[in-house]
Amino acid sequence: MADNVFESSDSVRHAKALRHAQTFTFDGPFQLELGGQLPSVTVCYETYGTLNAARDNAVLVCHAISGDSHVAQHDPDDDRGWWDIAVGPGKPIDTDRYFVICPNLLGGCRGSTGPGSVNPETGKPYARDFPTITVGDMVEVERRLIAHLGIPKLLAVTGGSMGGHQVLTWATRYPDQVAGVMALATSPRLTSQALAFDVVARNAIMRDPHYHSGQYYDSKTKPEVGLAIARMIGHITYLSGEAMSQKFEADRLQPRNVAIEFERKFSVGAYLGYQGQKFVERFDANSYLTLTMAMDLFDLGATPQELVMAFSPACCRWLIVSYTSDWLFPAFQSRNMADALIANNIPVSYCNVRSDGGHDAFLLPNELSVYGELMRAFLANLTGTPLEDAVQPVPDGLGHAPTSIFHKRRVDYDRIVELIPDGASVLDLGCGRGGLLARVRRKPDHRVVGIELDEPSVLTAVRRGLDVVQADLNEGLRSFADKQFDCVLLSQTLQAVYDVEGLLNEMLRVGKQGIVSFPNIAYEPLRRMLADEGRAPKSTGLLRHEWYNSPNIRFLSIADFEDFCRAKGIRIHRQIALNTEKDTEVTSDPNRHADLAIFVISRD
Amino acid sequence: MADNVFESSDSVRHAKALRHAQTFTFDGPFQLELGGQLPSVTVCYETYGTLNAARDNAVLVCHAISGDSHVAQHDPDDDRGWWDIAVGPGKPIDTDRYFVICPNLLGGCRGSTGPGSVNPETGKPYARDFPTITVGDMVEVERRLIAHLGIPKLLAVTGGSMGGHQVLTWATRYPDQVAGVMALATSPRLTSQALAFDVVARNAIMRDPHYHSGQYYDSKTKPEVGLAIARMIGHITYLSGEAMSQKFEADRLQPRNVAIEFERKFSVGAYLGYQGQKFVERFDANSYLTLTMAMDLFDLGATPQELVMAFSPACCRWLIVSYTSDWLFPAFQSRNMADALIANNIPVSYCNVRSDGGHDAFLLPNELSVYGELMRAFLANLTGTPLEDAVQPVPDGLGHAPTSIFHKRRVDYDRIVELIPDGASVLDLGCGRGGLLARVRRKPDHRVVGIELDEPSVLTAVRRGLDVVQADLNEGLRSFADKQFDCVLLSQTLQAVYDVEGLLNEMLRVGKQGIVSFPNIAYEPLRRMLADEGRAPKSTGLLRHEWYNSPNIRFLSIADFEDFCRAKGIRIHRQIALNTEKDTEVTSDPNRHADLAIFVISRD
Repeated sequence: MADNVFESSDSVRHAKALRHAQTFTFDGPFQLELGGQLPSVTVCYETYGTLNAARDNAVLVCHAISGDSHVAQHDPDDDRGWWDIAVGPGKPIDTDRYFVICPNLLGGCRGSTGPGSVNPETGKPYARDFPTITVGDMVEVERRLIAHLGIPKLLAVTGGSMGGHQVLTWATRYPDQVAGVMALATSPRLTSQALAFDVVARNAIMRDPHYHSGQYYDSKTKPEVGLAIARMIGHITYLSGEAMSQKFEADRLQPRNVAIEFERKFSVGAYLGYQGQKFVERFDANSYLTLTMAMDLFDLGATPQELVMAFSPACCRWLIVSYTSDWLFPAFQSRNMADALIANNIPVSYCNVRSDGGHDAFLLPNELSVYGELMRAFLANLTGTPLEDAVQPVPDGLGHAPTSIFHKRRVDYDRIVELIPDGASVLDLGCGRGGLLARVRRKPDHRVVGIELDEPSVLTAVRRGLDVVQADLNEGLRSFADKQFDCVLLSQTLQAVYDVEGLLNEMLRVGKQGIVSFPNIAYEPLRRMLADEGRAPKSTGLLRHEWYNSPNIRFLSIADFEDFCRAKGIRIHRQIALNTEKDTEVTSDPNRHADLAIFVISRD
Repeated sequence: MADNVFESSDSVRHAKALRHAQTFTFDGPFQLELGGQLPSVTVCYETYGTLNAARDNAVLVCHAISGDSHVAQHDPDDDRGWWDIAVGPGKPIDTDRYFVICPNLLGGCRGSTGPGSVNPETGKPYARDFPTITVGDMVEVERRLIAHLGIPKLLAVTGGSMGGHQVLTWATRYPDQVAGVMALATSPRLTSQALAFDVVARNAIMRDPHYHSGQYYDSKTKPEVGLAIARMIGHITYLSGEAMSQKFEADRLQPRNVAIEFERKFSVGAYLGYQGQKFVERFDANSYLTLTMAMDLFDLGATPQELVMAFSPACCRWLIVSYTSDWLFPAFQSRNMADALIANNIPVSYCNVRSDGGHDAFLLPNELSVYGELMRAFLANLTGTPLEDAVQPVPDGLGHAPTSIFHKRRVDYDRIVELIPDGASVLDLGCGRGGLLARVRRKPDHRVVGIELDEPSVLTAVRRGLDVVQADLNEGLRSFADKQFDCVLLSQTLQAVYDVEGLLNEMLRVGKQGIVSFPNIAYEPLRRMLADEGRAPKSTGLLRHEWYNSPNIRFLSIADFEDFCRAKGIRIHRQIALNTEKDTEVTSDPNRHADLAIFVISRD
């Protein structure tokens, strides 16, 4: 049987030998967060690229439960790393630009101190005497390693899953020691469902008769069945239902011919049995218990209020990525973190990447063009040199996002920018590729945040140096506090929103002021189209879509909007009417002569 | 510790003693589908209510993996049944009206022949000599029981999960022996993900050292840990993530004080450990292996083509229910079955009930007002006496569904009915509560099918005796074959659909003819509203919603629709213009004087 039978992109790959690994040992006692101590700690780690003279280009990569220090190949002859797709020369985490460090976790079994290590005080493996450790302990070890390497402040920390838990810990505990963090497929704490799977996995290990209360290192037998069962459960949770179907439906009753001591009737069973059996060859059951327990105990809070508190110190710059099909660390958890950061006015970009890959998606190449490029752009932003010129307009495609649908030129942008008070904090609802926000930022001292649903637009905006949260405006602005922004913009987006009233209410809750622009259905040529031709209004520039395929679903006139504000107790501070065909401001009968309106409103 | 600690509504309850159970034994050899035979088979069953003189009121209830014959209480002193909420006097499956039969499954361990039964040929339990059985074998046993009870044809067969697999088997193999079937939370075959969980569960049992190759009946030890692990895995999959969060988040680190030999650190773990430990007291590990394997082997096909073939003989009447949060038997599988039935012109109602209950939802009271009432209505329809008069209009509420939004009186209905050729098969897209379909059915020989998204409307339509499939028109009509219907109706729904062009294309693919009605934006008073008042058109009767909260998102005139048909190669056979204020047909300049248009169209 070839060694790569059933080798899958979704399982973490492991170097046979860690040829490039180094170790760093510090003598203790190393005090642990939950009490207890370790007499000494060894960290096994690998580095890639070169630390620059300023020592400010270091990126720490944190692995998940079953990973190790071998994040990437060091050279073409080297074993593949578990994140080769993301780390290397020219890759998203570009080792030509950044100095990458990847340590094996405290508690692991790939070179760093863990339950299988010899306790210097007894001369025997710690086994179940290894104390309960936390993600905080892992990060403390990482911090000592970073200090040992002479790095005063990291450019970034990144990781997925439990690697993400370390990222969150760095950011919330040591925000001054990191410029930015990239947290992928992670959560402020496990869901009860995810926790439940871990509990069953641990029960399978600890109730395996060969577990011998953890003292199996010298036994003839080890808790191999229990660990394999644990791994099988894990594997199911790492894959999405869709991915499993794609992988196993076609030949569900024709399993690969693998030599396993587990049920082989179904192809998915043979796969899982193989994964389980392989895992016991390279992983220590006590490490599995130790690391899953650390993950299960990780807890930054559950309620929005708790998360706002927990994330309040985390004032570095953030990139959060989740994956639509990840049900182990579901997207809502990442969104909750982004919300908590927003509530703290901490800069964050968030994208829920459309993916079939499940929790493993952050290890898969499929959507690398999104999340990998988000990482590349974010790192560039941390160095102060965004990949794209923020001011240069990106050519607008048509009809891909609910913004920029009326004009190729956005004649309203400059007027809106003029209306924003100096130094105001600005939230742009439906910011698209960030064209308006980029203009706002040209004025000094604006804190700007964008919200956009369209994934490519989010990526473009981040490449332009902006902080953008992917969200559906139809779901409201629950993450934002009352009057959190001086100014909330809704630029030519109103007409594409289903729940207009709900969104305007939210806008005026969150913003001291709102600036709304929309096309005017009562513009004279549009009136004529209905009155004289008997056809639904449209025009070549404005409202150029057909009645049956327009992204616009709401049609209103300036008078309608005035009526609405009157009826709903909304105060109109200023209104500007434009004729975008003539590029003029309209003062006489704007409801007839203007095709575009800008309103400055508030609810006092 | 009280016996009901952690007793949960989602776990199947078990009578301590099956006081009302009867048994029926038939001597073999009983040939099994996959080969092998049983020398004799005993069925343990319970009955409720009275078989009527015509012997046509019998309802067979099929239980899932861990259920038994005790589906409901027989009297107030009796133990609770596993589906007490649904079966009993006055309940949805009303034992005052129906004669209910619930047998324990072949292969089970609650009175029917299973691996723990004594093999009469050896005088010892079958254990692992018990042959591999199928859902088909279970149904064959049920069929013999029904014959033994003197029932020539069942009114209905119902069940959820693997109970649903039996339902599907009855309908596809013995459609002439059942008037209708109700399949809840089930699937044509397990997803790879669901299968994977079963495989891991079986591995946990069979690799338990106390499994003794299945011959544990006389041992001091049994594979209790393996079976408990299996049950824990099962429990996770029966609950939704939401339900688990609601149950365990608040006190995740304060587990109940239960005496279990499993990890107790987290409340969810204590719950699972308790469930696992309880399960081994009442369930036989070999039965678990036998029944899960039967379920895993159940396979009516995966692709739409296979399902159309598999369901082609199943020409009884169908009710299919899925639950939005069920991830073990996901809703798309039920929808696929409904699609296959539709493709076969077999009458089916389908509802994807909004629920947080996960797979267990079909056992929970939370959404009983929907799925229970659907069952009640469906059973009434099978007896030929729908619960509501189909012709009497149901009072229309406002703004709840994308139909009936323009008029309190549906003046277009009678005109549309006149346009339908005698005997035509009719599909109504966005049928609401079935008002139009009920009128169509008054004419003879129409096969009518409705599609509606709104859950209460689906229920009302079923109560009126109609077959309605819950679906979102924006997702197209993939389940329907080309030219499957003589006539497809889209009555005042067009204007609420986002992808108008896509839906019209689908409509004319599926229907030989389409009949479309919509409000005319170019009706003179509406033109005036925009032209003279400069406001978005609306009126009291027609288009009475405001621009910002209307369910209507598409606005078109009669001329626009004519243009559209011309541009898209759609043939207009007939058009009728109505002035609904005056209740007259408009012949002069309808685009100006009509507020409602009806078009008969086709694509040749």
